[in-house]
Formats: sequence, structure tokens, C-alpha cells
Amino acid sequence: MRLINLKIFQKVKKANLNVSSIKSLDDIKKLSIDLIIVCTPVLQYENILKKINKLNDQSFIVTDVGSTKKNIEDIYYKNNFKFRFIPSHPIAGIEKSGLENGFLGLFENRYSIVCPLKNSSKKDISLVSKFWRSLSMKTEVMTAKEHDHVLSLTSHLPHIISYSLVLTAIKKEKSLNSKLVKFSAGGFRDFTRVAGSDPEMWRDIFLANSKEIKKLTNMFIGELKKFSKDLNSQNSKKLLNKLQKTKNIRNRIVKAKQAGKFIPND
Amino acid sequence: MRLINLKIFQKVKKANLNVSSIKSLDDIKKLSIDLIIVCTPVLQYENILKKINKLNDQSFIVTDVGSTKKNIEDIYYKNNFKFRFIPSHPIAGIEKSGLENGFLGLFENRYSIVCPLKNSSKKDISLVSKFWRSLSMKTEVMTAKEHDHVLSLTSHLPHIISYSLVLTAIKKEKSLNSKLVKFSAGGFRDFTRVAGSDPEMWRDIFLANSKEIKKLTNMFIGELKKFSKDLNSQNSKKLLNKLQKTKNIRNRIVKAKQAGKFIPND
Repeated sequence: MRLINLKIFQKVKKANLNVSSIKSLDDIKKLSIDLIIVCTPVLQYENILKKINKLNDQSFIVTDVGSTKKNIEDIYYKNNFKFRFIPSHPIAGIEKSGLENGFLGLFENRYSIVCPLKNSSKKDISLVSKFWRSLSMKTEVMTAKEHDHVLSLTSHLPHIISYSLVLTAIKKEKSLNSKLVKFSAGGFRDFTRVAGSDPEMWRDIFLANSKEIKKLTNMFIGELKKFSKDLNSQNSKKLLNKLQKTKNIRNRIVKAKQAGKFIPND
Repeated sequence: MRLINLKIFQKVKKANLNVSSIKSLDDIKKLSIDLIIVCTPVLQYENILKKINKLNDQSFIVTDVGSTKKNIEDIYYKNNFKFRFIPSHPIAGIEKSGLENGFLGLFENRYSIVCPLKNSSKKDISLVSKFWRSLSMKTEVMTAKEHDHVLSLTSHLPHIISYSLVLTAIKKEKSLNSKLVKFSAGGFRDFTRVAGSDPEMWRDIFLANSKEIKKLTNMFIGELKKFSKDLNSQNSKKLLNKLQKTKNIRNRIVKAKQAGKFIPND
């Protein structure tokens, strides 16, 4: 593995891993590189990919770990890039970013989505998929558009909701004082975990997939308003019916071993 | 401990605990009881409390574990009950209900809120508080009104949001197929956990505290719409500022040891 970010490199060195660092992308030419993995907030990609393209080198494959895919594909086509690029998105991790928050088993049994481009060769798709599987991940191939559609529901909407709930709480905080923190174990604390994700990374995701996210947010607001209306009419039967419906999906997530585990106490 | 629900009693017997069961509340008279803890969905209280009041007995204190308090206080006053009642709410537990989901340390370091009535004696308040503290909980005394105000934000709103998100996802599910479950690790799965809570218990909470919940839901929808507007105008700076604001609360919850621990893998 070779890295170009010096700050990260120092962390890696501390961790005693076998890595080396380069100061400029041009130095790549001197090395024998198989795979470049872009790991930055998604709105920084264009600059980085431009530099990679300038290398004019077909000897390596480029992939990434970003949470949006359509905007990255668009950058590639718009700039008429030529390097071998297989975007991907390993869906693994916690709310904390950075090398020091990695842990054994981070990728185990999680899915990595691979989103080939029009000109991607079968061999390259297979190589990148194999790479993720070598980290004990499962892989699934889909288009960038489909990726962004699915992830807007399974990840981006939950994040915009969590951030908005915490922002609502901040407005109420003065009148509640320390009570917000003390009594957070009734549900609120789970949202603060998701809303504790890296701000820069998530700003970029929100902006890059804003259309899908806005559409879903409206749909969600509609659902919430209907719920509130049922409260208003004290519609007990309808309410119970709603709440019973949601259990099934949880059970399926647990069965698919994608649920994780929550330990209520510290 | 003595229980009157036969189904629960059978479970307790299986667990080899030292308990006995009674078939009717009238049998309480034959026993020497110090404390009755009502543990049912909150809309079932009125019937139960009526039966307790009929015993016309001042030798025991009654408390409970319900997530709403104002409606319970109202029931007591409206019916002109006379028994010694100190409502309380131990904020502990997971999304799974029932005796079989208890675990060692369930109450440790969590808060129990005690909501005395107008006629509560200092001695009774202190006895019930002491009971919760004997289970390693911390206690805090507040009015029923204040309890419902705080809990609507720290628990009831997060639950109505979680249920509504899962209901939104159910509507999109046909087009997504198994992808909703496979790629749920990006945030969605955390909401399904909260939305996996007991339907009957939560229907009652929503109905009993509907005014506070509706008010907060509207405030939250306003916050979400503002967020969506910032996406629309691609207001990068404002967005980053929003996302940075929310980290502070998470840090305080972690510091107060109320965060729990999430293990991403099964």
C-alpha cells in the first residue's frame, strides 16, 4: 500500500505498518502500482482524477470508496479521462473517520458496491471485485445511478434526518439544560451517533446526491405528516397497524447479518 | 417480587427466580406488599389503578415504569384515587421487550425519573428513589409535565421519526428488492432497531403524549425543510456549518456515559 497524504502516512508509520509515502502523484511512475484507491470527500475527486489522468498510464486500475457514484462517473466522462477506473463503495465503517478508527473485522461480511463505467473491461471489474472480496467483503455490481438511488434511502436520508433531529434538539436545549444529555438513552443518543459523522465528508455527499436526497426527504416528510395526523385523530387501530408493519424489515436485516450489535451500556 | 400476569410468571419460573404469582389483585391483601410496580402499556393504567384503589390500602406504595407521566397523573386526580402513588420512569432498556430480554447491568448508570403527585409525602418519594438507586440507577425528581416535555424530545420524537423512515422505505421496497436489507449498514439499520420496539407499548405512548409530540414533529419538519433548501441552493458553507454544530452534543453524551456502544459487525 502506498499513500500520498503525509498526515495519514505519519499515523500509519506509528501503527508500524509496512508502507511508504510519495509527495507527488508524479512519483507513481517510479513505482510499480497495481491499484490506486481514492479516499477523500467526494467533491475533491475532480482535482485528483485530473492529476491521475495526466500520468497517461494504463498500467494501474483506479478505484475509490466514495458514498456517491453518479457525480464521479460524470466527472470522468466530462473530462474525457482515459485511465482504467472502476468506482466502488465499500459499505462499512462507523461514525468515526480516520485510520486510527479502523478495527479488525471492519469489512467482514459487509457489502462493497462496484459501479463499472461504459468502457470498463470485464477483467478490471473482476480484479477490483476480487480485491474487496480479499478483505472478506461481499461484492455487488450495479450502475452509478442505481447505487445513488439505493444509498439515498439506506444511508443519505438517515443521515440528513439525524443531523436535523440534533439541530432541532440544539434549538430546544436552552430550556432543557443538562436534561437533553442525561435522558438521551431513550432513543436520541442513537441519532447523535449517526450525526457525529465527519462534517466535510457528509457535506460533499449531500451536495453530490442532492436531487435524490431532496426527493426522498419530501416523501419522508409526507409520511411523518400522516403519522402526526393519526395522532391528531387518536386513530389507535391505524397507529398500531403502522407500528406492526415496521418489525418485519428489522427481522430481515438481522437475518442477513447486517444489523450490527448495540450494547446499551458503556 | 410478586407478579399477576400468568404468562410472565411462567417465564420467571423457567428462569428459576424466587417469585410467586397471584391470580387477582384481591389476593394482595393476604400478602405483605411494600411496593407495586405497574409495567403495562400506559393506556392500560386506568383499569389497573382503579382495581388498586378499590383495595383501599395505605400499606404499600405504587409506582410504574411508563414512558408518559402527565396522562397517568391526570387519571389519578380525575378518579380521586387515594392510594400512595409515586409514578416513575426508569430510562433503560433496548428495543426488545419482555423478561427474556433483560440483562445484567440493564439499569446501571442509567437515570430513573421520579414524578411525585401533589399529595406525595417526602418519605414515599425518598423510598421509591431509593428503590431505583438500589438497582444502580441515578434518580432525578421532576413534574409529570416536565418529564413529558423532555421525553418527547429525547425519546418520543426519535421513535416517530424511526417508524416513519421505515414506513418510507417500505413504500420504496418493491423497486429496491433485497437491496434495502443488503445495504442497510450505511445508517438505515440503526433506525430499524428503534422502529423494532414493541408496537402496543409505543402506540400508547404516542397517543398519551400526542400534543407534545405533534409540536416537536412540526419543529423537526421545519428543520428538515431548511436543510433541503440548503441542498437546493448548494449552500456549501452553510451546510458545513450545520454539520459541525451537531458533534458537540454527541461528545457530551459520550462524556456523561449515556452513549452505549455500537458494534458494527454481528
